Amino acid sequence: MKPATPSRSWVESAHEHPDFPLHNLPLGIFSQAGSVPRVGVAIGDCVLDMAEALARGLLQGLPEEVLESVSQGSLNAFFACAADARSAFRQRLLHMLGKDAPSRVEVRACLHQARHCDMHLPAKVGDYTDFYAGIEHATRVGKHLRPDAPLLPNYKYVPIGYHGRASTLRPSGVPVRRPKGQMRPSGQHEPIVGPTQKLDFELELGIWIGQGNPLGEAIPIGQAAEHVAGFCLLNDWSARDIQGWEYQPLGPFLSKSFMTTLSPWVVTAQALAPFRCAQAPRPPGDPQPLAYLWDDHDQATGALDIELEALLLTEHMRTRGLPAERLAVSNSRCMYWTVAQLVSHHSVNGCQLHSGDLFGSGTLSGPGADQCGSLLEITQGGSQPLLLASGETRQFLADGDEIILRGRCHANGIGSIGFGECRGRVLPAL
Amino acid sequence: MKPATPSRSWVESAHEHPDFPLHNLPLGIFSQAGSVPRVGVAIGDCVLDMAEALARGLLQGLPEEVLESVSQGSLNAFFACAADARSAFRQRLLHMLGKDAPSRVEVRACLHQARHCDMHLPAKVGDYTDFYAGIEHATRVGKHLRPDAPLLPNYKYVPIGYHGRASTLRPSGVPVRRPKGQMRPSGQHEPIVGPTQKLDFELELGIWIGQGNPLGEAIPIGQAAEHVAGFCLLNDWSARDIQGWEYQPLGPFLSKSFMTTLSPWVVTAQALAPFRCAQAPRPPGDPQPLAYLWDDHDQATGALDIELEALLLTEHMRTRGLPAERLAVSNSRCMYWTVAQLVSHHSVNGCQLHSGDLFGSGTLSGPGADQCGSLLEITQGGSQPLLLASGETRQFLADGDEIILRGRCHANGIGSIGFGECRGRVLPAL
Repeated sequence: MKPATPSRSWVESAHEHPDFPLHNLPLGIFSQAGSVPRVGVAIGDCVLDMAEALARGLLQGLPEEVLESVSQGSLNAFFACAADARSAFRQRLLHMLGKDAPSRVEVRACLHQARHCDMHLPAKVGDYTDFYAGIEHATRVGKHLRPDAPLLPNYKYVPIGYHGRASTLRPSGVPVRRPKGQMRPSGQHEPIVGPTQKLDFELELGIWIGQGNPLGEAIPIGQAAEHVAGFCLLNDWSARDIQGWEYQPLGPFLSKSFMTTLSPWVVTAQALAPFRCAQAPRPPGDPQPLAYLWDDHDQATGALDIELEALLLTEHMRTRGLPAERLAVSNSRCMYWTVAQLVSHHSVNGCQLHSGDLFGSGTLSGPGADQCGSLLEITQGGSQPLLLASGETRQFLADGDEIILRGRCHANGIGSIGFGECRGRVLPAL
Repeated sequence: MKPATPSRSWVESAHEHPDFPLHNLPLGIFSQAGSVPRVGVAIGDCVLDMAEALARGLLQGLPEEVLESVSQGSLNAFFACAADARSAFRQRLLHMLGKDAPSRVEVRACLHQARHCDMHLPAKVGDYTDFYAGIEHATRVGKHLRPDAPLLPNYKYVPIGYHGRASTLRPSGVPVRRPKGQMRPSGQHEPIVGPTQKLDFELELGIWIGQGNPLGEAIPIGQAAEHVAGFCLLNDWSARDIQGWEYQPLGPFLSKSFMTTLSPWVVTAQALAPFRCAQAPRPPGDPQPLAYLWDDHDQATGALDIELEALLLTEHMRTRGLPAERLAVSNSRCMYWTVAQLVSHHSVNGCQLHSGDLFGSGTLSGPGADQCGSLLEITQGGSQPLLLASGETRQFLADGDEIILRGRCHANGIGSIGFGECRGRVLPAL
């Protein structure tokens, strides 16, 4: 018989913590004052130090692969563990941190205050793929280019995606340098090179791959969800003027590759399980997905109900102590494809996925005017400047602007869990 | 005073070896009968085992970073070494293997027959970028889509490139599985999923990045060549039917990501130095590159004179003992951009490059009908089937077909050096 899962932690700050109550237990890589980065688990305002927990024997009896994996400086090996081994680890954490835990003194000695911890990227990302699964975003972007036919003919058949740059993924808090590049000012024949004038953010979900697949072997849709280890928030910083000039015919490149910001805590697939929901039925007239992308169980349970937010804190607001202003509120339910469909599609050609690979969902805008996950959409390409409560206006991001992404889930009986923050402030071009 | 560089090796098979005479000394990662992969240097028909050379003290006196780097299982650390440290290593090899070497017995004990060695990828590739610098290829491909304006307006300003898939890079000899994917048969409204019917190769040069750059800091064009450690051959296998359906608007994805084949030996920038040449002047009417891409010294010496070949060996030819048939002969001088221009462009936005990153040049077709580096060009999209000397015909690749790429340079006083082979045979779809 399985032990009952405790619902409340003895760690006081975990109680009704907006992001990290006992149910969440996200994993990350942290260090303190320059110490070696190691695995931690967020609980309330604290980080549970897994190296310390190992040293104190608190993980005894867990599968060897788990013990080995949580003693490393990245989560790649943990993501590669079998699902039941990762579940056993989660059960142990729930037991150690639950209100009836027997050995609080030992566990308490493994807790650090999160505010004293530096967070790192959770894994060494072999390959980063950015999808385009937010259909409202794709539609609005397409309308700029083709008002009568915003979505290209392939959109509702192919989970469109492209390879992103892994070397410039950075954790929340690292500032983003305004990039330079080629752009062609409107009405001119010749391009110029200089700092982007159209720096933007994109509100996305990040998806961490668990176990991979051998080269040449596709992952069937019915097994695809098992290959996902967890989730984070992802800001796909974009330079729209560079993008517009460079993207034909091979897609966005330097307009995106200067940096991508991730929230550092990996919210596991197990923690998110209660917040899964049915994929919205396709609107009448939309095609049925091809068989390799269709699974009844996935359609019934494969969508995610995560409330997403993007906020802007300008230099002016920061100086005056004003709160950040919300630019958008959206939900991951607006994805036209489930995560399992993304995984199956990515591997249908035999492409090998590795543990610690990262997917971006694409910008997750909703249909409403207040649900636009990028300034490109909010200001209609800059043509409708945004008036902020501070009295400032924005077409695109100014130096000193900080973008903050947040994600949160609610379910009866479980309460709320969150992703922590995904922040980045714009530095002036060099 | 520098010691005189010997021109001839005491290793008999190196003398007039078509690929690996003394001047070349390419580096690679090899193993024998399942042993741990380690650094080797090709000389004639042999591989010089660097672990053995280290153990015998043959590398004494070289910079510590070199000794450390050549004792590893990948070349990333070697690529990261300072240029003068890598030069000192090359001088030592020339001395050890040159005809006047004092301690042949010790060195000979470090030689393995290459035919008994298995070759691996030379480095752990963090990010792989594929450029599109072959203007003849870009023009022919563009003609299919836009007969009156084959090149897009950005082509002569922007070194077009896109992120490729690092996880499916494989060394020569690994067979390529015919991929499945979505495609829309001509004249039909709905796509289907199945094995590609238009499997193709692309004849490219691979470029290995040496020292990288910090996030946010561009590499100036005048320093860009120093960031290149070496070169290889690269076959960018492509599924044209999948590509045609998926590539809008974010570029090629699954049509390329199933596999990319590399020749395993890294021909160093130092070995290639005598084969550098002036970049061909741009035709009248072509725009002057923007300042960040222009350097007089680079224009005078930054092109590469490498003869490239692609050959096809069908199952029928193999069974009958017929030789492979040459599909194309070309030259890396057809690149519209120098390698330094590719490096500078890639980093102009602050994108971080790491040691062991890989660039592809793009398909290096020449202007002639026999200089087409892909079947897409040779058969004009399949509309003009190729008649082979064996009596067979090809529109695209058949199961059992093997593509072999070769590269070779000649210079008076130096003779010839080559890249070794880059081969891959097509396996039927699963």
